[in-house]
Formats: sequence, structure tokens, C-alpha cells
Amino acid sequence: MIHRPLSRIVVLAGGVGGSRFVRGVAPLAAPGRTTVIINTGDDDQFHGLQVSPDADTILYVLAGLADTRRGWGRRGESFRTLGALRTLGNQTWFQLGDLDLATHIDRTARRLAGEPLSAIIATHARALGISTRLLPMTDAPVRTRIRTARGELAFQEWLVRERARPKVLSIRYVGCRKADPAPGVLDAIAAADVILLAPSNPFVSLGPILAVRGVRRALRAARAPIVAISPLIGGRSVRGPADRMMRALGVPCGPAGLAALFSDLLDGIVVDDCDLASARRGLPANVAITATNLLMTSPARSREVADVALQLAHSLARPEGERP
Amino acid sequence: MIHRPLSRIVVLAGGVGGSRFVRGVAPLAAPGRTTVIINTGDDDQFHGLQVSPDADTILYVLAGLADTRRGWGRRGESFRTLGALRTLGNQTWFQLGDLDLATHIDRTARRLAGEPLSAIIATHARALGISTRLLPMTDAPVRTRIRTARGELAFQEWLVRERARPKVLSIRYVGCRKADPAPGVLDAIAAADVILLAPSNPFVSLGPILAVRGVRRALRAARAPIVAISPLIGGRSVRGPADRMMRALGVPCGPAGLAALFSDLLDGIVVDDCDLASARRGLPANVAITATNLLMTSPARSREVADVALQLAHSLARPEGERP
Repeated sequence: MIHRPLSRIVVLAGGVGGSRFVRGVAPLAAPGRTTVIINTGDDDQFHGLQVSPDADTILYVLAGLADTRRGWGRRGESFRTLGALRTLGNQTWFQLGDLDLATHIDRTARRLAGEPLSAIIATHARALGISTRLLPMTDAPVRTRIRTARGELAFQEWLVRERARPKVLSIRYVGCRKADPAPGVLDAIAAADVILLAPSNPFVSLGPILAVRGVRRALRAARAPIVAISPLIGGRSVRGPADRMMRALGVPCGPAGLAALFSDLLDGIVVDDCDLASARRGLPANVAITATNLLMTSPARSREVADVALQLAHSLARPEGERP
Repeated sequence: MIHRPLSRIVVLAGGVGGSRFVRGVAPLAAPGRTTVIINTGDDDQFHGLQVSPDADTILYVLAGLADTRRGWGRRGESFRTLGALRTLGNQTWFQLGDLDLATHIDRTARRLAGEPLSAIIATHARALGISTRLLPMTDAPVRTRIRTARGELAFQEWLVRERARPKVLSIRYVGCRKADPAPGVLDAIAAADVILLAPSNPFVSLGPILAVRGVRRALRAARAPIVAISPLIGGRSVRGPADRMMRALGVPCGPAGLAALFSDLLDGIVVDDCDLASARRGLPANVAITATNLLMTSPARSREVADVALQLAHSLARPEGERP
């Protein structure tokens, strides 16, 4: 079942699409050979607790604890603490389940005790029996903020509280200029045999990772081929606001628009079968294209998508020692 | 049903006995005329969360949310977050329920935002519809520590983790010399018509309150008669380690021993019917004695005990204007 046992795979991921893709990559890779670099621009604080939604979603998915239908949080979740917090007068629009809260409580306690986020995620991954290496993009606070006609909002305010309705004027990653990559991020990119951009929102999942100091430069300099998996099917995002964001920000909502955002990085792209024709028309000749069914409705389908992406990436690999 | 509507009642309380007694006093007093000064020496931090067990027990009891059978925590409680915290590698000997956790999460967030404990307790009391005024003894950190043959332990470590087994050599209230009473404590004592020492552990519930700077002096100077309700029935504590502590610390385990601890304060004492004879023999002549059934197994029984205590106190009240 393992793809190429010695391949060192790096995945940049965030959001539901990211977690569904990582769920497919992990079983195809040898233990310890996959590193996921996770978006933390979504992180926020609720009721004094540090919440890292993308890291937790990936943690829960790989531990087999995720509510995969809902796409976030834990299976069999309950919301009793949140109800009691509401009774005490708190706003509770950000859903935090009783099981999920344990992760936030423990992370917050460790953060206050001085542990960096990367160490905490590693501890949680170990406790949950995960062999895939999970790295936050940075240990520094980077916060994605959405400028809208109704003012600037924190990402979770825009996405969850306002249900992604206020039209996006621009996006910024506050703190990214001062944020160094978490320990291991640059080394993993440099040592990778394959680099995959998960089918995550290019602006609010991959964008923050690429905005961390030195990450984009390290990707450009990497030996490994870089393959993106499209988060779009027929010009629409499977889930989440990627398509609306692309349109709002004037980026063509299809493989060509996506490739344009990563034009300095991409060696290949995996698109959905229904987007193959438009991808062939719109993509530069130096970007290799493969098509498959990108709907990852089950772990098996996630593996199939990961398999196609890894095959494309391996086919693009430069022979050992040969640098472009 | 209300006892003497204009009486200003002050109760010093902590622990399960304290909450059961306060449950009896509240319905006998006019709204807003009762102030409970609550022990915070039991407070501790678990998983980075600030826990105030005595304040919360009284909060839950007065809000009708308490698990009165168990004596602590909330009715219909579940422990899902705690289980998930254990999975992440945490020690979970201190039981924190999902509903209860909301109180600790909110308190911790407010503390970190700079709110003093007294303001937080007032906010929680208001949110839960409680008209009794609840004051922590102090906003400063005071921590009861138990010196045992196996070393010194935090109070909750000794009581809960070690199940009160290590023999008590001495008790100290760390921080009490620097702790000022919470806003309103000294004024409430000075203005009180009646002061009641709840049937709480004299060392670890009432002791810390009396150790806060100026509280004991204010009680000595108070106009109001001071009446203690014994936490002992037949030389044994109804619940908790009061009896063992008294013996370990060389204090006779009965009304006389109790009265000796508060000899500078007491005008009267309510003892259990079965302790009346020994109380008559052992107590100084200037301490008035009343006996009743002190087992507060129901809200009605709590009211009966409170009624007896208030009657004794009112009978000892000095006429207005007359100071001893």
C-alpha cells in the first residue's frame, strides 16, 4: 500500500480540504516520512482558550477521532460546557465541543507555561498515536484578517459568526512579517522528495503558510517537485468560501486562476476530471496536469486522490543530484 | 418565612457544610440582606484553569444547580472533557465536570483580563439569578497548605488526591499576611446585625477567612453577635476531615474544642442535640448554647438549622446603640 517507502513527503495544508487530503496521504507514506505544514492563520482565542482549528482538524482526522461528515471537531461530540458558558453571559457562536475543549485547555495551559505551539502539537500527536509529523507553519502569532465593506474582521468572525457573507475586499496575515517558520519547516521543505499543496483555500489556508518568512523562498529553492491539488470542482469550491474569495479578489475561479497564484512554485497540478479541458487551455506549458475525481467523500477516495497526486509528483521528480 | 426582614446577616462559610447552611439562610433572609464571605484558601489551578471550589459550591447551591447528594459540582454533570484531557496525558484526579468547567474557563479568562475574583463571583451570581451577596474572603491568592509526614501538600492534593490520608502536622495559609479582604468584607462585618460561622471545617474553611488581614479584628470589633454552628455531631464531622484534623492538631474534638478556636469571637454556638451535655460542661459561661438536629439532609433541614442559629443570634443582639 505504501507509495514509495523512502519518499519524504511534505504537505502544506489547512481547512477541511487539507485534512481530507492528509487523511489520504498518511496511509500511503512510510511512518515518519510525511511532514504536514499546517496553517495557523485561523487560530484565535475564545473564552481565553487558544484554538488552532486547522491543526486540530488534522490531529483528529489522523487519530480517527474526527467528525468527518461535519468536517471539523470530534465524532460523538457534545456541547455542554459551551451551553454553560452561554448561561454565564458569553457569546458562543464559535462551536467548541466538550471533547474538543480538552485540546484547547491543554494547549492554553502549555502555552502559558511557555511551550511553543510546535511542541504542543507534537505532544498531542504523540498522545493520540499519530506517526505523521505535524508542524505549525510558525510558532509566532499570525492572524488572518478579512477586510470587508463592513470593516475588518478576524477570520473566524468572518467565516463562522458572519457565515462568510460580508464581501471580501482584501486579506492580510497580521504578524507574518515577523513570523519565523516553526522548527523543522524549512529543513523539511529542503529535504523533501515531493511537496504537495493540499486542496485547501489558497487565500486563507495556503496563503498564510506562504507568507511566513522564508517559506515561499524555501519552496522555490526546493529540490522536490511541487504539485497542487485543486480545491475546485467545476469552478466551485467543494466546501468553504474559496470560490467566492477568488471571484471577489478578481482571480479566475478555475485551475488557471489557482495556478496563477502559485506560478512561481508549481510543477504540476491535479484537477478534477470536469476541469481538465479548462486546465489544458489555461495553464502554462511548464505545469503538468493530471485529472481525477477530487471529491474525497471517504478515506478510500482521499487515498485515491493522494495516490494520483503522488504519482504526478514522482513523475516530475528530477533525478537525485540533478538540480535545475 | 423571612426571619427578621431588616436583619443584615453575614455568614462565613466554606466546604460542603457551609453550602448546606447557606442554602438554609438564603430563603430566611430578605433579598440582598445576606452576605456570604467565602473561603478561597481551597482555590487551585488545574489544567491552567482557576478553580474556586467553595465559591462555586455556594454558587451552584443557591442557583439550584448543585449536586446536593454528592456535595460538590453540578447536578446532571458529565466528565467528557476530563476524559479527553486524560487521553492527552494529563493527571485528572481533581474531578472537573463539563458544566462546571464553564465556570472555571470563564473565571480564568476574566482573571487574565484583569478582573478581580470578587467581581467575577458577582457576575456569575448575577448570571445565575442569585440575590444573596457572595464575597470571596480576598481577591489576593491565599493557599491553604497541609504539612504532613510525607511533606507539604496543596490542600486539594491532600484532600482529593491523597484522600485526606497523610496525617496532618500543621496547616498554613500561604499569602494570608499580604491578603487584604475583598471589597465589602470589612464593611459587611461592621454593618452586620448577625454574624454566623457556618458549620464548616474550622481549620481549612473558616481558618483561612479569619487569617485574612483585618478580618479577625473586624469580627472582634463587630456590633453583631457572633454565633457558630458546629460542624460536629457526636464528636465526628458530618462529612470531611474536620474531626481528624482536630485530633491531629490536639484540639478536643467537640463543642469545647471548637469554641476554644474561636474563643475571642463567640457569643453563641449551635450544637447537635447529642452534643448538648458535653457543650454545657465544656463551654465558657459567656457562650450561649442552643441544640438542634444539625444534619442538613434536605433544604428544609438546612432552613431549620439556619432558623435556630438566627434565633440564637437575635436573642444575643445588643440593643441598637449599646456597645459592650
